[in-house]
Amino acid sequence: MTAIDLNADLAEGFGRWTLADDRAVLELVTSANVACGFHAGDPGTMRSTTRDAVERGVSIGAHVGYRDLAGFGRRYMDVAPAELTDDVLYQLAALDGFARVAGDRVRYVKPHGALYHAMAHHEAQALAVVEAVRAYDPRLPVVGLPGSVVLRLAEEAGLPTVREAFVDRGYLPTGELVPRGRPGAVVHDPDQAAARAVGLATTGTVLAVDGTRVTATADSLCVHSDTPGAVGLLAAVREALGSAGVSLRPFTTGH
Amino acid sequence: MTAIDLNADLAEGFGRWTLADDRAVLELVTSANVACGFHAGDPGTMRSTTRDAVERGVSIGAHVGYRDLAGFGRRYMDVAPAELTDDVLYQLAALDGFARVAGDRVRYVKPHGALYHAMAHHEAQALAVVEAVRAYDPRLPVVGLPGSVVLRLAEEAGLPTVREAFVDRGYLPTGELVPRGRPGAVVHDPDQAAARAVGLATTGTVLAVDGTRVTATADSLCVHSDTPGAVGLLAAVREALGSAGVSLRPFTTGH
Amino acid sequence: MTAIDLNADLAEGFGRWTLADDRAVLELVTSANVACGFHAGDPGTMRSTTRDAVERGVSIGAHVGYRDLAGFGRRYMDVAPAELTDDVLYQLAALDGFARVAGDRVRYVKPHGALYHAMAHHEAQALAVVEAVRAYDPRLPVVGLPGSVVLRLAEEAGLPTVREAFVDRGYLPTGELVPRGRPGAVVHDPDQAAARAVGLATTGTVLAVDGTRVTATADSLCVHSDTPGAVGLLAAVREALGSAGVSLRPFTTGH
Amino acid sequence: MTAIDLNADLAEGFGRWTLADDRAVLELVTSANVACGFHAGDPGTMRSTTRDAVERGVSIGAHVGYRDLAGFGRRYMDVAPAELTDDVLYQLAALDGFARVAGDRVRYVKPHGALYHAMAHHEAQALAVVEAVRAYDPRLPVVGLPGSVVLRLAEEAGLPTVREAFVDRGYLPTGELVPRGRPGAVVHDPDQAAARAVGLATTGTVLAVDGTRVTATADSLCVHSDTPGAVGLLAAVREALGSAGVSLRPFTTGH
Repeated sequence: MTAIDLNADLAEGFGRWTLADDRAVLELVTSANVACGFHAGDPGTMRSTTRDAVERGVSIGAHVGYRDLAGFGRRYMDVAPAELTDDVLYQLAALDGFARVAGDRVRYVKPHGALYHAMAHHEAQALAVVEAVRAYDPRLPVVGLPGSVVLRLAEEAGLPTVREAFVDRGYLPTGELVPRGRPGAVVHDPDQAAARAVGLATTGTVLAVDGTRVTATADSLCVHSDTPGAVGLLAAVREALGSAGVSLRPFTTGH
Repeated sequence: MTAIDLNADLAEGFGRWTLADDRAVLELVTSANVACGFHAGDPGTMRSTTRDAVERGVSIGAHVGYRDLAGFGRRYMDVAPAELTDDVLYQLAALDGFARVAGDRVRYVKPHGALYHAMAHHEAQALAVVEAVRAYDPRLPVVGLPGSVVLRLAEEAGLPTVREAFVDRGYLPTGELVPRGRPGAVVHDPDQAAARAVGLATTGTVLAVDGTRVTATADSLCVHSDTPGAVGLLAAVREALGSAGVSLRPFTTGH
Repeated sequence: MTAIDLNADLAEGFGRWTLADDRAVLELVTSANVACGFHAGDPGTMRSTTRDAVERGVSIGAHVGYRDLAGFGRRYMDVAPAELTDDVLYQLAALDGFARVAGDRVRYVKPHGALYHAMAHHEAQALAVVEAVRAYDPRLPVVGLPGSVVLRLAEEAGLPTVREAFVDRGYLPTGELVPRGRPGAVVHDPDQAAARAVGLATTGTVLAVDGTRVTATADSLCVHSDTPGAVGLLAAVREALGSAGVSLRPFTTGH
Repeated sequence: MTAIDLNADLAEGFGRWTLADDRAVLELVTSANVACGFHAGDPGTMRSTTRDAVERGVSIGAHVGYRDLAGFGRRYMDVAPAELTDDVLYQLAALDGFARVAGDRVRYVKPHGALYHAMAHHEAQALAVVEAVRAYDPRLPVVGLPGSVVLRLAEEAGLPTVREAFVDRGYLPTGELVPRGRPGAVVHDPDQAAARAVGLATTGTVLAVDGTRVTATADSLCVHSDTPGAVGLLAAVREALGSAGVSLRPFTTGH
C-alpha cells in the first residue's frame, strides 16, 4: 500500500498575532513545519505546538528562516554563509528544546520562504544550511524541492533528504513552480487540489499549467495552511488520499 | 585546599556591536555566562564563544534575560510566568545547541540584569525560571544570590543551586548589594577587589560599606566584564586567589 | 445638539499579521488611534491607514506604546523616564510624517496597553509622556482616563486634554474599569454597548457592575476594534448615538 | 575661496552598545549622518545627537537603512519598493522630529550600508528612496556617489543632489570604490587621507590604486567614523584642508 507524508506550516504567529488555524491543521497533517522565531513564531507558540504535535503523533520539523519578522522571511537577504549556519543552528536548537520537553525531538529541517527559494540555486546559502544540520545532527533530513541545490549538497554531506511536492501550487512544464503572481500559481479549489494530491502520491506526476503532465517525485506533500479555506482543502486532500488507498504517515528517513 | 569558581558575563554583543574583551576574559574565568539573544548575544557570537570556552575548559552557563535588546535586559518587565518559562526555555535550548556542537553542553543557568534582580523577591517569575530549568534538565543548577527566592524555589523543585558573591560590588550590612548609583555600589580598584575575592573564598565574608563584616557564602565569585579595567581586575583577583592557596575550578554541582 | 468623538485602535498589525478589520472600523469612527511601530504597526500600514483616515475625515492619533512587539505593549516595562520621552517622541514623529504626507497631521496622543494603564498612577512615566508631547507640539492633546495622573500633569504643562470613556468595558462603582479577567470586564452585546454609549454621551454616566450609576465624563468614547464582533458593535453604537440626537465628530481641542 | 562639506556617520549605537566616539567626531565634521533606528540608532541617541549637532552648527542628515539591526544594514535585502519607500519615510520622519525638537530639521538623506550600495545600480530601490524623500519634502537633497542611479533619479524627480567622495576609501581607475576586502580598499594613514582630501576638494580628483588620477567631483567628503583612529584621521583631514585654504561648511543645497 502506498503511503505519503502530508506537511504544512504551523505556529507562524508572533505574540498577539496568529495566522492559521493551527489546531485544525494539526489534526490533518502528519508533519508540522514549526516556525522558530526568526520569520515568525514565539516561545509560547513553539511550546504549545510541539506539545500538541506530540500528542497527535505529528512529526515536528524546524521551519527555519531569515531573521526578518517584518518581512515574514519572504525577502531574500544576502546573509554571509557562516552567519546563516549559526542562525539556522540557533533556530533548530531552540525548537529541539521544546520538542524534547514535549517528549519527542525535531525530526527534519525545512527552510522557509525566501530562504526556501534560495535553496534551489544559491550554492553558498544552501551549503550553509546543510552545514548547520550536519553539525547539529547528521541524521536529520533536509526537506526540499527535487533537483534543488540544497538536496544535492545534503546528499553529498551524508544527510538524509526528503523531496516534496506542492498540492496547491501550479507547476511549469519544466517541473518548477509557477511564480506567485502569475496565472495558475495557486490552486484554490479543494477538489482540484485533492486530485493533484492523489496523482502526486500514486503516479509521481502532476498536471502542469500548459496541460502537460510533469514528474514530481515526492516523499512528502505540502499544503499551505495560511490561505482562506486551507483547512477545507487539507480535509479534501486527506479524504481523497484515503479513498485512493494512500495512507498518511510521517516520512521515515532520519531518526 | 580551598577551590572556588570565577564567573563573568560574556558574548554580550549583538551583530556589529561588542561589549567586553571576551577572549581575554575567557582566559581568566572558570565559568562563562553566555548571553542567549534576548538581552544581548547573537548566533555567531554564541557559536564562537562556546567553541572558545570548550577549548579552554571553561564551563558554559545560559545567561537568560528578558526579551529587551533596546534595554539590554536591565528594565523590569511584567512578563506572565508561563511566557517567561517559555522564553527561558528558548534561550537555554538555543545555547545548549551551540554548546553541544562545540562538544560540551550548558552547565548552569544564571538570569541576567533585571531578571536576576527579580529572582531575589518575585515569587511568580522565580518559579517560572525554575520551571523552565526543571523541564529542560533537572540536573542543571541555577545560580543566584544566597537567600534569594529563586534558590529556595529551585531547591524545593529538586534542582541543584549555586550561591554567588560579587567581587566588585559593594555590600550593605544586611548582606544585600548596594544599589547601583549609590556610593560604594561598585568596586573599581583591582587590589581591593582581589582582597575581597580572597576574603569571600576563604572566610565566606566581605566588608560591608559601613565597615562591618557580613556573611556571603559563595560557590562562585562573579566579576563584571564590561567595565573599563575589567580584564586587569580579573587578573588581579585570579592572582590573589592563587597566592592565597585558593584554586580556581568550575563548580561541580549538576551534571 | 450634543456631539461626541468615537475612537478606536487601528493599524495594529505587523508585516504579514493583521488584527482588526481596519477599513470597516475606519468607516465608523471619528478618531483613529494609529499604532506607531513599537507595540504594533509597520511603516506600510501607517502609510495606508493615515491615507485612508484623511480621505474619510477621520482624525489621526498617535497610539504610542512600550517597545515590545512580542508582548503587544501589554506588559509593564520599567523604562527610565528620559528614555520613555524619547521613545514617545520617535513614535509620534514617525506617524506625523505619514500623516503630513497624507495631507494632515497627528491630532492627539493616546498611550497604548500597559503604558496607558501606567498613565493612571505612575507619576514619572506619565510626566515622561507629557514631556514628549510638550516638546514636540504643545498644542497636541493627550487622551486619557478622567482622574488619571497623565491628564493632571498634561494640564499642568499647558497641554490640552481629552477625557475618554469605554463603551465596551465594565465600570466599578468607583468609576474605574473592571480589571480584565473579572466578571463584567467586557461588554460584548451590541445593544448594551449602544445603550451605554448613549448614556455616556448624553448624561456623562454609566451603569457600574453593581447596578449603581457612576459619573464618566467623556470627550471621546472608545470602542475596541480587535474583538470578534467589533464592527457590528461599533455600527450599533453609531446608530444608537444618531437616533439619540448625538452627532459624531472628532474632538476639537488642540490644533 | 574653496569650501567643502565633511560628513561622517554618527549615532550608530543601539541601547547599551556604542560604536564611534560621537562627541569627538561631531567637533570635526560639518554634516552628521544620523542613524534612524533600522540598522542602528535608538531614540535616546537620536535625541542627544541632534541636540549636540544643533549646538555645534553641524548639519543633520537622515542615515536611512534596511531594517536589519542584526546585520547593521550591511546585508542586501530584497525589499519591495513600496515597502522601502515607507521604511525610509518612517526613519526620516522620526529623525526629523528630534531635529525639530532640537531647533533645526533634517537637511539631507543619505542611505546606509547595503542600501547605499544598492543605490548605485538598483533602479527600483533607488526610485523607492527618491519617492520617499520627494513625498516628505522635495527640497531635501539626496547624497550619493557621482554617476549612481539614485542621483540620476533624484534629479529627474526634481530633488537637489549632493555628490560625495570618500577620503579613506581606495578608488579603481573607473572611478568606483575598491570593494572591501581587496588590497587598497581602505586608507588608514591620516597623512595619506589628508592629502587625498585636499586633492578631492581642490582638483576634484583622487589617485586610484593603479596610480592613475581619476575624477571624483564632490560636494561633500565622507570619512568613516567607526574605524580605530577615525578621530585622528578626521583631525588630520580637517587641518590639511584648512592649510590648503579650503574652508569647511555644510553644503547649501536644499533648504
